[in-house]
Amino acid sequence: MLIPSLLMFSLLFVSSFASVQDFCVADLKQSDTPSGFPCKDPKKVTEADFVYSGIGKAGNTTNLIKAAVTPAFTAQFPGVNGLGISIARLDLAVGGVIPMHTHPGASELLVVIEGTICAGFISSANTVYFKTLNKGDIMVFPQGLLHFQLNSGKSSAQAFVSFGSAVPGLQITDFALFANELPTELVAATTFLDVAQIKKLKGVLGGSN
Amino acid sequence: MLIPSLLMFSLLFVSSFASVQDFCVADLKQSDTPSGFPCKDPKKVTEADFVYSGIGKAGNTTNLIKAAVTPAFTAQFPGVNGLGISIARLDLAVGGVIPMHTHPGASELLVVIEGTICAGFISSANTVYFKTLNKGDIMVFPQGLLHFQLNSGKSSAQAFVSFGSAVPGLQITDFALFANELPTELVAATTFLDVAQIKKLKGVLGGSN
Amino acid sequence: MLIPSLLMFSLLFVSSFASVQDFCVADLKQSDTPSGFPCKDPKKVTEADFVYSGIGKAGNTTNLIKAAVTPAFTAQFPGVNGLGISIARLDLAVGGVIPMHTHPGASELLVVIEGTICAGFISSANTVYFKTLNKGDIMVFPQGLLHFQLNSGKSSAQAFVSFGSAVPGLQITDFALFANELPTELVAATTFLDVAQIKKLKGVLGGSN
Amino acid sequence: MLIPSLLMFSLLFVSSFASVQDFCVADLKQSDTPSGFPCKDPKKVTEADFVYSGIGKAGNTTNLIKAAVTPAFTAQFPGVNGLGISIARLDLAVGGVIPMHTHPGASELLVVIEGTICAGFISSANTVYFKTLNKGDIMVFPQGLLHFQLNSGKSSAQAFVSFGSAVPGLQITDFALFANELPTELVAATTFLDVAQIKKLKGVLGGSN
Amino acid sequence: MLIPSLLMFSLLFVSSFASVQDFCVADLKQSDTPSGFPCKDPKKVTEADFVYSGIGKAGNTTNLIKAAVTPAFTAQFPGVNGLGISIARLDLAVGGVIPMHTHPGASELLVVIEGTICAGFISSANTVYFKTLNKGDIMVFPQGLLHFQLNSGKSSAQAFVSFGSAVPGLQITDFALFANELPTELVAATTFLDVAQIKKLKGVLGGSN
Amino acid sequence: MLIPSLLMFSLLFVSSFASVQDFCVADLKQSDTPSGFPCKDPKKVTEADFVYSGIGKAGNTTNLIKAAVTPAFTAQFPGVNGLGISIARLDLAVGGVIPMHTHPGASELLVVIEGTICAGFISSANTVYFKTLNKGDIMVFPQGLLHFQLNSGKSSAQAFVSFGSAVPGLQITDFALFANELPTELVAATTFLDVAQIKKLKGVLGGSN
Repeated sequence: MLIPSLLMFSLLFVSSFASVQDFCVADLKQSDTPSGFPCKDPKKVTEADFVYSGIGKAGNTTNLIKAAVTPAFTAQFPGVNGLGISIARLDLAVGGVIPMHTHPGASELLVVIEGTICAGFISSANTVYFKTLNKGDIMVFPQGLLHFQLNSGKSSAQAFVSFGSAVPGLQITDFALFANELPTELVAATTFLDVAQIKKLKGVLGGSN
Repeated sequence: MLIPSLLMFSLLFVSSFASVQDFCVADLKQSDTPSGFPCKDPKKVTEADFVYSGIGKAGNTTNLIKAAVTPAFTAQFPGVNGLGISIARLDLAVGGVIPMHTHPGASELLVVIEGTICAGFISSANTVYFKTLNKGDIMVFPQGLLHFQLNSGKSSAQAFVSFGSAVPGLQITDFALFANELPTELVAATTFLDVAQIKKLKGVLGGSN
Repeated sequence: MLIPSLLMFSLLFVSSFASVQDFCVADLKQSDTPSGFPCKDPKKVTEADFVYSGIGKAGNTTNLIKAAVTPAFTAQFPGVNGLGISIARLDLAVGGVIPMHTHPGASELLVVIEGTICAGFISSANTVYFKTLNKGDIMVFPQGLLHFQLNSGKSSAQAFVSFGSAVPGLQITDFALFANELPTELVAATTFLDVAQIKKLKGVLGGSN
Repeated sequence: MLIPSLLMFSLLFVSSFASVQDFCVADLKQSDTPSGFPCKDPKKVTEADFVYSGIGKAGNTTNLIKAAVTPAFTAQFPGVNGLGISIARLDLAVGGVIPMHTHPGASELLVVIEGTICAGFISSANTVYFKTLNKGDIMVFPQGLLHFQLNSGKSSAQAFVSFGSAVPGLQITDFALFANELPTELVAATTFLDVAQIKKLKGVLGGSN
Repeated sequence: MLIPSLLMFSLLFVSSFASVQDFCVADLKQSDTPSGFPCKDPKKVTEADFVYSGIGKAGNTTNLIKAAVTPAFTAQFPGVNGLGISIARLDLAVGGVIPMHTHPGASELLVVIEGTICAGFISSANTVYFKTLNKGDIMVFPQGLLHFQLNSGKSSAQAFVSFGSAVPGLQITDFALFANELPTELVAATTFLDVAQIKKLKGVLGGSN
Repeated sequence: MLIPSLLMFSLLFVSSFASVQDFCVADLKQSDTPSGFPCKDPKKVTEADFVYSGIGKAGNTTNLIKAAVTPAFTAQFPGVNGLGISIARLDLAVGGVIPMHTHPGASELLVVIEGTICAGFISSANTVYFKTLNKGDIMVFPQGLLHFQLNSGKSSAQAFVSFGSAVPGLQITDFALFANELPTELVAATTFLDVAQIKKLKGVLGGSN
């Protein structure tokens, strides 16, 4: 009889490929590796591992930059581990700004969901590329270059930014310079900023030394 | 005097790095390569090369799948060439569906902008993962696996899908099987579908043989 | 004296490179990672880890597709872990067929060992490329695209298929659509196949819902 | 009416993805690039570009190594360009040997088609791994390491070797040392071989200086 | 006779691999690609293409940062094209500093040749790692992170910095912020620096707007 | 009040990125993986993990090759793990030589620090490229190809060699052929060297069989 034998074949066939690595949901309890976290046991993986609702709500913009970045990187969304992609949500109140920053490990693609955003980046050749983006516009920011986004409209703005890595990283220039214990004299020597300026921003951002 | 000499230094310094490759806007007139298209002359690149408005409007869903996919891959948006990232917009009218398909070259990350979408994928181990997604939910689809999205709500739905490649590719199973000249007997032999079913869908989708 | 000192040097020299990673035989008991399994202790690795006899015999083709796929991927042959290469054996009895399928993670190179095989693939641009191959012919199938192989001769056929990955994956379209619990209405909505056709194949392949 | 509109949709839909890069058949007349040759115009690509018959016949083993290597790399088989895979055929008459060599750019996977082959490699840690292989056995050789194959049986032997690159390269140690104009004194100084031995092999292999 | 036939074999054998891609010396006159420049005709390549003397002399440090960076990237040394490695020379007079900067495309490894250098970097987690390095010490700076080097000794200092890319890029924060036409108000909004500070540094570094 | 709220924001903001993977200092006690060793807990990482003094002193050249190679690969310098870069120091007394060798996993870039070095490599096409290098000269050696360095001057020489991998590997041809248990008859059969020559070098280098 036809059906049973094909059925048995199909079961056997698939089982011999059951250990194939299609995905690798991060097991965040194990040590990270250069290619990402070790994988959660595939038998315990469910559809919930591939879905995340954490960027569905606006971030809190009642802060001084009047903006929020809500990431869905491996740490927040283990399903993207090893898949070379991730996303974050930007919320910008009126006057809000995502300060000058870089992502060391990936290029970024921004899509405006709501409002008007002035965005730009600066190349290694020191050329500035910036433009005002409206709802539905997209802009790409090449890997590792300084870039920024600010709400240039009269209402709140929202965007999603995608990355070609599950761990794009984020380094905000101001925080790197002023929000840690890097000594003022080193900041001054390596940025040519005035000491008073440095101390003022260290005060604002919680840096010391 | 201080200023002129530092100024001259800064100009000289930057010029020696002016040819550094931060980005590679595609020159689509030249032949493609395995890593992407050759680069447009950097001196002719402007901010317009990094911005694209082509996915800002809803695609036309007055078709039988009641859905539209509007891509911003290298062919449409040359600024992403070589940067390992791209995006597309999905519009789904009520009852709309993005049929079963794969992207041979990249994983996908979907974010729901509007409406309710039932989305899922099937693994090499033949397990099905699917879930109903609401506004703001994200779902990741590992590279190369069959997946689908359909509007499971009572109003139109919209989503953006990002890819970890500038050329993710797209292969819709139905189009691959029924919308070309692949002989009916080969489709039958390799899918176990009935000939009548194949001929019916070839008729609908414009296939021959 | 010359000999002893060079000897000592050579021993010392080599020992300082003894931990260099030339290979990484999979330790399948540890958790997988995005780059492959952790490595077996190099001191316990022997030549047996790099040799495999499991694809030396013809697979059982007394099934309804009259064909067998016998893989030597990481799961079967841990020696290829991390080396970006693997292989499988295809056996096709008269009338045998490897149904329409994809490998999500690698391109494939087929070499015909015996018999006559009709093989083909379909591109993202929906073009069909297929050809009848004889003993010694090779054919390449680009990553992630639907392809098939069927015995188009009057005797049994055999082939080896190599992959540019140790974990190429395998997704047989029919099994993905009909051999699991994916609901019939979702299959219908995403493939335009008739419900009767779907239920028939679900019956044959052991699917439910 | 249903059919025409879906047909039109399918045609439009596919056309917007027609320039997607699934493959990149080498245009060998253009300059190579680090990722491979520029692509032949996809509109001129046919199934013949993905099939090659050049390794179907035994190579000529009536030479002093009693062996032949017949490659299907990008230069011979432009269809593999950019796909990360290639193959070569080994023919070994009785007593034949593929001399000690490396592939700088890829790991190798050998499958014995006929006869008995003794094959082995040496690791960075200077450990030797070698084994006698029979028909159907496979062996993997990690990237860049010295390895060899010799016919250890009483009849001719044949094998296929696959590579995880379209351009694996090949460097036969003897040819590198003795079959070119590298001065004898440099060979002596860097290998500790006796000058007489070097001159003898330079004579045999056509080297000078 | 033995010698002629092996000789002929060796010549034939090598010629069939003559087009193999071991290297790809940049032809800087052609358009760049995402993987690097197209290759110079291998027949015209000589040993001079793989050797460069341009970093053998100390750079001119009679400028205000009292330092010089002399690169040997693809643009200066086309032989590294596609090989994933490059180097630059740092010269620091007493009090010299390589200002805060990033390399978007590669990690960096510094080796001190002469003098005493205080070097450091700041991570995405905003932790500062810095240390005083003496002759022969090495330090690694992970890809894309802000870092700096300054002469902390009483005599001139020299170092070589290697990169895991032929085009690591270089973005000096001060030049990106103050040495171009990026409007003062955008710098202020995205860095929280005082306008007076910005205008002062724009004046020093030649920026406008 | 302004300052506290921004301070709080900055602390919160940075903490949500604290688990981002900027680096992965090797935890050598865990099993290696194809992408490198698992990472040391980032909270225990200090600046000492990124600095290494082990190549600051000249290696011992009072051996028969009158040379020393002192590596700073992952095994010696865990800070480079996963960063795609490493370095080694070469010391060559008068008449010293780094024998013919390959690095299976990376290209190499040499910079002469002191003395005169004759260095060269041989391509897959069997072309020899060699040149005498003076202080400050650099030379690049493409991945996996045989190359050598010898002191061609009248005083000791020193160089640093950088690699585009944290685990470049090293295979010295003489050690691979003569300093292990590879049977003499296999060496003879695969290199065409005379048995007496092989036995002589096995004696010198400590090989057996």
